[in-house]
Amino acid sequence: MRDLFHEELDAIAADHLRMTSLIRDAIESATQALLGADLKLAEKVIADDLLVDQIANSLDERTINLMARQQPVASDLRSLVSSLRISSDLERMGDLAHHIAKLARMRFPNKAVPVVLEDLIRDMGSAATKMVEKMAVVIEFRDLNRAIDIDTDDDEMDALQRKLIGILLSDDWGNSVESAVDMAFASRYYERFADHAVSVGRRVYFTETGEYPAKK
Amino acid sequence: MRDLFHEELDAIAADHLRMTSLIRDAIESATQALLGADLKLAEKVIADDLLVDQIANSLDERTINLMARQQPVASDLRSLVSSLRISSDLERMGDLAHHIAKLARMRFPNKAVPVVLEDLIRDMGSAATKMVEKMAVVIEFRDLNRAIDIDTDDDEMDALQRKLIGILLSDDWGNSVESAVDMAFASRYYERFADHAVSVGRRVYFTETGEYPAKK
Repeated sequence: MRDLFHEELDAIAADHLRMTSLIRDAIESATQALLGADLKLAEKVIADDLLVDQIANSLDERTINLMARQQPVASDLRSLVSSLRISSDLERMGDLAHHIAKLARMRFPNKAVPVVLEDLIRDMGSAATKMVEKMAVVIEFRDLNRAIDIDTDDDEMDALQRKLIGILLSDDWGNSVESAVDMAFASRYYERFADHAVSVGRRVYFTETGEYPAKK
Repeated sequence: MRDLFHEELDAIAADHLRMTSLIRDAIESATQALLGADLKLAEKVIADDLLVDQIANSLDERTINLMARQQPVASDLRSLVSSLRISSDLERMGDLAHHIAKLARMRFPNKAVPVVLEDLIRDMGSAATKMVEKMAVVIEFRDLNRAIDIDTDDDEMDALQRKLIGILLSDDWGNSVESAVDMAFASRYYERFADHAVSVGRRVYFTETGEYPAKK
């Protein structure tokens, strides 16, 4: 049977899972809004990010109160510190989805993504969604193999970004500088989003084992 | 007289100050390396960032141990949680200076900054240095007015970034797409650097007063 402290830790993980579910929807919708110049969807992502921020704030409050009340021993304290850091990674992932949606809104009614990059942006969006889905499994089931997996996905994201930047800088880039700058920023947002997913995986790993997985 | 716990808090602030001093040098040198295509200086910034990361890691360890040993009451606990967050802001500022230096290295022996943007990049570098210097005063003397000041400086940084992006996107941008993408990223790194300085100011304010300053 779980004691009260561990029940509260479970409740924190449940809130991380709620945030993750919101972030999953946000990054998927942001990608769709960016590709389809869908203003309504972009606005929804921007508005919904407030909810992620609210959960993060109330969770911080609760986690710090739990530290103060329970005076946890070293390993439990490390769990709580990791929880605070996971919240802040998740909050930042929400921000990055929000940034992508803002790019879509800024160029509306035009499409921000030129045809030549549509597939790549779609791939970056899918990679991001896949990572956030794995992150949910890691948070819910403390699945450490999956936590390490996220690192491999991140290599894929980095490769997609390099490919995208290569296209922007190639001699036959036929689009505007504005479009190149937009796409450079978009790729950066996806890449940072992925970095934070890796970070969450590593923090859960740390919470469960007391050490970080080896960097590849 | 300070008790042991508060002496340890002072020691943490002293380490934050050491990090801040390294970051100050890093952002100043990175800007100089970027403007002057100075490979040696860029390499130095990249290598020195390891030191910032090392201090951050050992500081995290010490802060969490202090939490575990001292079982601090609510307000002291909040100070320690803020300390962890300040470390992570500072570590990220180091990373961003490192990113700027890597841009300089990537384009060496060419200059990454086109002539038309030299003044603006210099201004962004100066704004960043000014913010990090204020941050040092805030950390050392808990100067809350200065903490709020950093927010105003951030508006200046945002304005500089908007101006830079405006030049990239103007019809008379006579430089390459590569250069536009480089400068878009550089401006983003300065802008994020400034955001983290604001965040440090707000966290010190919170530690001292128990609340965050009103957002403007």
